[in-house]
Amino acid sequence: MDATPGGESPTRPGEIVFGLVNATDLVKRLLVGRKLASAQLGETLLPKRIALPVFASDALSSVAYAPDEILLTLSLAGMAGFVFSPWIALAVAVVMLLVVLSYRQTVHAYPSGGGDYEVATVNLGPSAGLVVASALLVDYVLTVAVSVSSGVQNAKAMFPFLEGREGMVAAIVIVLLMTMNLRGVRESGSFFAIPTYGFMIGVLGMTAWGLFRFFGLGEHLSAPTAEYEVVGTITDFSGLAVVFLLARAFSSGCAALTGVEAISNGVPAFREPKSKNAATTLALLGGIAITMLGGIVALANLTGLKLIDETGGSHFAKDGVRVDLAHDTVMGQLARTIFDTFPVGFYFVIAMTMIILFLAANTAFNGFPVLGSILAKDGFLPKALHTRGDRLAYSNGILALATAAIALVLIYNASVTSLIQLYVVGVFVSFTVSQFGMMRHWTRHLKTEKDPKVRAHMIRSRMINAVGLTGTGLVLIIVLASKFIYGAYLAVLAMAAVFLLMRSIRRHYDKVAREVAVGPVDARMLPSRVRAVIMVQEVNKPTVRAVNFARATRASSIEAIMVAVDEAETRAIAAQWEAQELDVPLKVIASPYREVTGPFLNYIKGIRSDNPRDVVCVYIPEYVVGHWWEQILHNQTGFIVKTRLSFMQGVMVTSVPWQLASSKYAIDRVKRNTAAAWRRPGTGQVRMGDPRETSRTE
Amino acid sequence: MDATPGGESPTRPGEIVFGLVNATDLVKRLLVGRKLASAQLGETLLPKRIALPVFASDALSSVAYAPDEILLTLSLAGMAGFVFSPWIALAVAVVMLLVVLSYRQTVHAYPSGGGDYEVATVNLGPSAGLVVASALLVDYVLTVAVSVSSGVQNAKAMFPFLEGREGMVAAIVIVLLMTMNLRGVRESGSFFAIPTYGFMIGVLGMTAWGLFRFFGLGEHLSAPTAEYEVVGTITDFSGLAVVFLLARAFSSGCAALTGVEAISNGVPAFREPKSKNAATTLALLGGIAITMLGGIVALANLTGLKLIDETGGSHFAKDGVRVDLAHDTVMGQLARTIFDTFPVGFYFVIAMTMIILFLAANTAFNGFPVLGSILAKDGFLPKALHTRGDRLAYSNGILALATAAIALVLIYNASVTSLIQLYVVGVFVSFTVSQFGMMRHWTRHLKTEKDPKVRAHMIRSRMINAVGLTGTGLVLIIVLASKFIYGAYLAVLAMAAVFLLMRSIRRHYDKVAREVAVGPVDARMLPSRVRAVIMVQEVNKPTVRAVNFARATRASSIEAIMVAVDEAETRAIAAQWEAQELDVPLKVIASPYREVTGPFLNYIKGIRSDNPRDVVCVYIPEYVVGHWWEQILHNQTGFIVKTRLSFMQGVMVTSVPWQLASSKYAIDRVKRNTAAAWRRPGTGQVRMGDPRETSRTE
Repeated sequence: MDATPGGESPTRPGEIVFGLVNATDLVKRLLVGRKLASAQLGETLLPKRIALPVFASDALSSVAYAPDEILLTLSLAGMAGFVFSPWIALAVAVVMLLVVLSYRQTVHAYPSGGGDYEVATVNLGPSAGLVVASALLVDYVLTVAVSVSSGVQNAKAMFPFLEGREGMVAAIVIVLLMTMNLRGVRESGSFFAIPTYGFMIGVLGMTAWGLFRFFGLGEHLSAPTAEYEVVGTITDFSGLAVVFLLARAFSSGCAALTGVEAISNGVPAFREPKSKNAATTLALLGGIAITMLGGIVALANLTGLKLIDETGGSHFAKDGVRVDLAHDTVMGQLARTIFDTFPVGFYFVIAMTMIILFLAANTAFNGFPVLGSILAKDGFLPKALHTRGDRLAYSNGILALATAAIALVLIYNASVTSLIQLYVVGVFVSFTVSQFGMMRHWTRHLKTEKDPKVRAHMIRSRMINAVGLTGTGLVLIIVLASKFIYGAYLAVLAMAAVFLLMRSIRRHYDKVAREVAVGPVDARMLPSRVRAVIMVQEVNKPTVRAVNFARATRASSIEAIMVAVDEAETRAIAAQWEAQELDVPLKVIASPYREVTGPFLNYIKGIRSDNPRDVVCVYIPEYVVGHWWEQILHNQTGFIVKTRLSFMQGVMVTSVPWQLASSKYAIDRVKRNTAAAWRRPGTGQVRMGDPRETSRTE
Repeated sequence: MDATPGGESPTRPGEIVFGLVNATDLVKRLLVGRKLASAQLGETLLPKRIALPVFASDALSSVAYAPDEILLTLSLAGMAGFVFSPWIALAVAVVMLLVVLSYRQTVHAYPSGGGDYEVATVNLGPSAGLVVASALLVDYVLTVAVSVSSGVQNAKAMFPFLEGREGMVAAIVIVLLMTMNLRGVRESGSFFAIPTYGFMIGVLGMTAWGLFRFFGLGEHLSAPTAEYEVVGTITDFSGLAVVFLLARAFSSGCAALTGVEAISNGVPAFREPKSKNAATTLALLGGIAITMLGGIVALANLTGLKLIDETGGSHFAKDGVRVDLAHDTVMGQLARTIFDTFPVGFYFVIAMTMIILFLAANTAFNGFPVLGSILAKDGFLPKALHTRGDRLAYSNGILALATAAIALVLIYNASVTSLIQLYVVGVFVSFTVSQFGMMRHWTRHLKTEKDPKVRAHMIRSRMINAVGLTGTGLVLIIVLASKFIYGAYLAVLAMAAVFLLMRSIRRHYDKVAREVAVGPVDARMLPSRVRAVIMVQEVNKPTVRAVNFARATRASSIEAIMVAVDEAETRAIAAQWEAQELDVPLKVIASPYREVTGPFLNYIKGIRSDNPRDVVCVYIPEYVVGHWWEQILHNQTGFIVKTRLSFMQGVMVTSVPWQLASSKYAIDRVKRNTAAAWRRPGTGQVRMGDPRETSRTE
């Protein structure tokens, strides 16, 4: 449901705030208008208990697949590999701690919610910001692909018939998410709260109950895979191979850290004191994530749970004989083992795992267009994407994200293990650049800050960010080194491509801006007269309207021009023209070779060269239609003429629309779409109560 | 080279012929203008010796595959089948005779060159005309597919490595033809004359030389397949199976008749006396085609040439043992056999066969857009396709034709035998409907004609067309009955689909025409004032130009509107606006939710409801760019605003173009394309010397 209170919008869209008097006045009134709009926003701010699920679903959901990937990778060293799993989990927890501590600094320093992109741009320049943005855009795609794939893999414990159809099922889930987002389905806080708390309760409850059965009741529970051995591909345990393997397992486990940065984007949505509340929530998130990760790895070790990496070459065996065995995910095996006597618990854990993973994918559908909008504002993406509320911007972003993610799940058949090789790189690029930016931030502020107490605080913060930078930088190197040939190079290539594309777009905008820039007072020559020309193809209501509108403009001269393509037709039209008593002369232009565009353009060119100081205004009657296919049947000649005229200096083209009866379908469609856009969460970060709703309901 | 003489065009495109004085004057001056244009056309008319190759390449080229298809089909009855080949050829020749005689009547009755579509529309109504048009459109596609496939199959005799790659090679040939036609490569008379006469000389020379060697020198020549037996699938020679097989062989042989109607479309291109010359050429064409067909079948029988239908089930055998044998086409085998001691003859025949087949496909590329243009004029296809010279019309037609033909050759792997099952249906639908129309034509004229001599002539003509109707109608039934399940049903379905599509388009146009029709003098209310609104997003040269142009129109009120999306940006723009001293007030509209379109539209809606009798003119600065991708980066907001405004009554939108430096690329492209369009043969039927060339060269 929706917690948004009613209340009148202080500045309704379309209402004039002021006419221009002078710039100072403008600024003042703008600020007043802004202030009111912001005050209204305050009523939708999030308490911590709602902010946690809203911003944590992505980060927490990764706990569902990170242990799998650790164990899978370790299985390549056979039974000996699994011994390392607690240590890998510990290492991941340490990195998680570092990241959480670092981001608590960001949250205090940048309460505006600009996130890593803002931190990098402000402190390290636009190129660094663009690197972060490229990394994030690619990672959004991977978040969708990995989360949905993992959701489908986990769902197999509940729905075994999904086996062998994973890629297709994942693609269908993405299509559903896309449709939901395109139609602007409203998300309230409870939409996030229920599955996120459900997942937390499920996993923590399962851990507690499992540990109680082991240590309280003294039971010995065995996972379905406990009775098997695992044979790996690595036999030499002395060399670099094991180090490399551990590095890979650690890199894959670091997937648990994805999504932690979300809170730093959402600071403005918190209740006051915003930064403090956000920092507390961040700490809470870190604590819960580490506990869940630790609990799952502990249970996996206690129950003797094993996984294999089929593509990597490890396999199950019993008494030395190879066994082919389909196995569930870690979550599936644990839920089955620990809730062996309580099936409701099993279904609850699996269902919540699946839902939170799909929800995590959904947050990417919110974040991707928001980041796109910010990048568009800075000229790195088509500027039209900047303005919010326009369905176009969101639709294009959502479609692009869904298409890329669907391609990935189909190519990799929704294999989390394959996709994870591409993942994480982007997150750690963004972490590392952002930490470096934070260090610069503190250093800059320390230059001007005199208060010793504040300085001490800043120095401490810089220390934390330095440790964070070292940690995340190191992880980035480990991730790149250990995963590069396994797929990370593809992520790097994709980021480079996105980076170059965005930089070219910005360069283009800069070039055009220089080209069209005006001087302090641009010297200009006003055209002396306007010569109106009406393009006539038939005599009907649209043409008559064009004539009437053109006459209303009181141009210096006005004439209707028709190109004679067919003799009988021309004669009929001329007679109709006379009958209509339109008070505008109709000129017929010869076209011996039955062509319309050329002769018409030549005529306009003639007017221009005869009257170089005048401007020509060409009126073209246009049918407004309701269906795309009607567009093919109408306005084509007008469109070609318009396009060709636009290359001429001193010519403007006026479309005089005539609304056909069918146009009402298009109007209805626009209305529906606008309504859908209004229902869409405005900022993507503040996902509860859309402030715009108030101006709709009044 | 080109035979077009120079000379000044009497009415250059774009020149004004007259201002409107009254309708009578208009008609007179139009007629004068027309007369001159027609006189000029006269200089490019075709003598018979050029008209024959220009119009006959399609009809003659079908002699290259018709004998193959007759023999292939007969092979299903084994060795006994081939005995029937002379009789089938004779039956085809008789039908050819009937068709030629019938079309001689059409040529006299309809010297305008409207072809079967005109005959059917005038005499039987628009639906009959549409049936013919659908049949012809589908047949154009099949002409390309069959001719190119046969060209590739024949080329295999010369280039054996094409074996197994036929579909791909045929697709490449079609792409080449398409590109040639899209670029507007000029075809002169000699372009047709050389290969057509070359093919005639080759085939007739081969026949003469072959017959001389048999009967003059008494040699006994054996085709490469002469030593094999053919085992068919039909063993019972008493029943319906053989009758059905003969019907199928005849139907396939009737492919030899495709293209005969081309001359009736081209009458205006002949020298005076047009109809007589066209009729003579038609007779000539019929005589040559029958001679060539007879000669080839005779030689095939003499040399013991055999073909098998692999997909149908017949196969070669030697001494009762099955033999798998790749074999050439009839033309390939005959050329190899008869020119066994004269390889130059072999290569000449095969090369000419291949070229004339590709040329036949090329004529479809000319005919398809021309028919499309006529159909567009009658409202059965998008009206924009009507006007010639516009590259768009031809390009779309050529692309559609090529795409469909490529799909066919790839699906059927360029197998003439498979494609021929779909062919011929359309031609005979068109023949039959057209003959029926001719009978109606004579009956109608007989009602008013008194002169007994003319009446006698008409009665004779009607008799001929009646025989033609019976003959072609019978063939149509045989074709449909014998080929329906082998693929003809697909052609029928395609025709039905095309028919329904074209009828819906016409209905749509009729509906719209009724909707926008004006009365004798339509009562109207002139808008009292024009309120100019300039949409401002930035202050730069395009915006300044829009302001200057809007000011030049002297509207009743003028204001610049900007939607405040970003505070700092709005402030900067307002300051720039002041600095520019534009003498137009800038109003800033609040948009608390950072949306541009909605507030702007609401504002315009407000002006409209406050001033319902006025018309609003919205000026939008537009960037004119040179590349498609620049279009994505610019004008998008303006485009959305424009589209949404077009749904409002009483609002017109004026685009004020600003030409970016890059727009010169687009201008150059337009110039190149226009030049290419000028080079394109204008009418498609008159393929020699483009009359428009004169107005270019002056």
